[in-house]
Amino acid sequence: MMYKRAKIIIALIGALALAAVVLAGCSNTGGNNTAAGLPKSPLMGDSSEEYYMVTFLSGMEYWKDCYRGFEDAGKLYGVKTVYTGSTQYDVNQEVTALEQVIAKKPAGIAVSCMNPDAFEAPIKKAMDKGIPVVTFDADSPKSGRYSFLATGNEYAGSVAAKALAEQIGPSGGQVVIITLPAQLNHEQRVAGFKKALESEYSNLKLVQVGNGKHDQTEAARVLAGMLQANPDIKGVFCTDAISGVGAATAVKEADKVGQVKIVSFDTDKGTLDAIKAGVISASIAQGTYIMGYQSMNFLYHIKHNLINPVEGWKEKGISPLPPFVDTGVTIVTKENVDAFYAK
Amino acid sequence: MMYKRAKIIIALIGALALAAVVLAGCSNTGGNNTAAGLPKSPLMGDSSEEYYMVTFLSGMEYWKDCYRGFEDAGKLYGVKTVYTGSTQYDVNQEVTALEQVIAKKPAGIAVSCMNPDAFEAPIKKAMDKGIPVVTFDADSPKSGRYSFLATGNEYAGSVAAKALAEQIGPSGGQVVIITLPAQLNHEQRVAGFKKALESEYSNLKLVQVGNGKHDQTEAARVLAGMLQANPDIKGVFCTDAISGVGAATAVKEADKVGQVKIVSFDTDKGTLDAIKAGVISASIAQGTYIMGYQSMNFLYHIKHNLINPVEGWKEKGISPLPPFVDTGVTIVTKENVDAFYAK
Repeated sequence: MMYKRAKIIIALIGALALAAVVLAGCSNTGGNNTAAGLPKSPLMGDSSEEYYMVTFLSGMEYWKDCYRGFEDAGKLYGVKTVYTGSTQYDVNQEVTALEQVIAKKPAGIAVSCMNPDAFEAPIKKAMDKGIPVVTFDADSPKSGRYSFLATGNEYAGSVAAKALAEQIGPSGGQVVIITLPAQLNHEQRVAGFKKALESEYSNLKLVQVGNGKHDQTEAARVLAGMLQANPDIKGVFCTDAISGVGAATAVKEADKVGQVKIVSFDTDKGTLDAIKAGVISASIAQGTYIMGYQSMNFLYHIKHNLINPVEGWKEKGISPLPPFVDTGVTIVTKENVDAFYAK
Repeated sequence: MMYKRAKIIIALIGALALAAVVLAGCSNTGGNNTAAGLPKSPLMGDSSEEYYMVTFLSGMEYWKDCYRGFEDAGKLYGVKTVYTGSTQYDVNQEVTALEQVIAKKPAGIAVSCMNPDAFEAPIKKAMDKGIPVVTFDADSPKSGRYSFLATGNEYAGSVAAKALAEQIGPSGGQVVIITLPAQLNHEQRVAGFKKALESEYSNLKLVQVGNGKHDQTEAARVLAGMLQANPDIKGVFCTDAISGVGAATAVKEADKVGQVKIVSFDTDKGTLDAIKAGVISASIAQGTYIMGYQSMNFLYHIKHNLINPVEGWKEKGISPLPPFVDTGVTIVTKENVDAFYAK
């Protein structure tokens, strides 16, 4: 009898111990294995891990959407994300912000570089310390960062051509561009637009390219002159949002709303309002959310050493990440414009 | 006494039941929650999920490395991966292989398209059925696939220029190219090489471009003619592996090993052996492992609806994935050649 009872008690203690061990295994999200012997997913991070996003002009709407993607991916991996940067359009201030982040030895950094050269040294320093870095939106190509995630501007220009062709319709006609010459990303947008006209939209004929000078009034003045001189113009592609809003003014003042289709760039409130009002026909939205999301996705996989193309890839000079990701664009029209107001 | 024993037995049953429940929670990787109330990571997939990689010429070494990346990422997410395709270089056979995969209603498909047009309809069909598709290495741009992951050939050409500049050294000199004219990816490699010479390696002067005709003997003959006519040639960039091995023959026969540097493309055994022997100085390895790894990474995130740039993105025509990923290249030299032999 006593013997049986002892056996029962021993069994009871054993069962309780097992339950305790199993419980510990399930809740220990920071450990490597559960007590039941099941490996914890390497895709579950630790909440003490901090990943930083660093930008210039840190108040801008544009970055908020990038960070939304970064934060959402961080939540999935169970890690902490932080957004910081320089409030001003000031290279030194942004470099200082990055240096402060590096000093905290974070798990990873995604940075948009105001200037490629100024960020070479700090990014190299971070990488040497074993902090993985990716750049997004604006690159520092010689910094040694793992990857650059941004809009492929030539492709974006081809999408703008498609949007303008759709808006003008099969009859086609003469079109013009308002751009910022000598700025690389804008030149690439123009190049992509031109190539697409040549290869796919030959019913559109590009007749003039004007300089918007990053000024709304100037862009309006330039387009007004073109419209006066050439009544056959059917459409205009503006490679930046300021020119786009300027073009909207010119088209309204010429009383040609609907006759002259405007395809603009980006999704600031002025542009979206003009799309809602039917003055701007379409705009090209950049994949800001995707920039942030995939930056975080990549950083996590590197930090946790999950990607191993070959053993010892670091010493052998083999990168485990894509050097460039074209984060894409979306055509914004009246149909989907509401999705692009700030969230 | 009986009462006490009954209590012990009840406690024992309770503890065992708890242990059983907790154990079930830990091993149920397909469920949504553990018994301890901790949410299961959405990044832990179900082993019943099947992701397929489909290619043409399914025996090729090149694809094995793509699939190695796909498989490794699949293991991380706890899902099943399968490799299939057509054994022949035959479009219809590959389309049939893809159709058979679609019929199985898999969780996702990564496909390398032998021909862009032939794959439009089947990929559209898969996407319409809710099966996410990405293309890798070779695209079908109008198929509606989420993303295309491949070597950015212009960038690869610029890396080849860098490799050749390093091999020739600061004195520079005249260089030539052996390529396959009128094949888009090879034209892009040549364009990237030329641009890099103009902008960064002005001590290299491109004096001639020859046609390797996808034939080792022909490539050797073409380069031999160039070397005979111009003893000042210091280097050659071959945009494909067959030309590269041909060029190696020509340089050996001209007794100019070491004097004329060869930078080739890809990592078939002949190229790697020639690098080991010091006849080919460097080759440009494509990021095959990365193509596979990121294809799987992207497919998983889409299948599990983890990326939500805006609510209802599908209906609003907003893609949650980058349209293009440049999976990058690595310069292979004597120093790291061993890492590139088939694994």
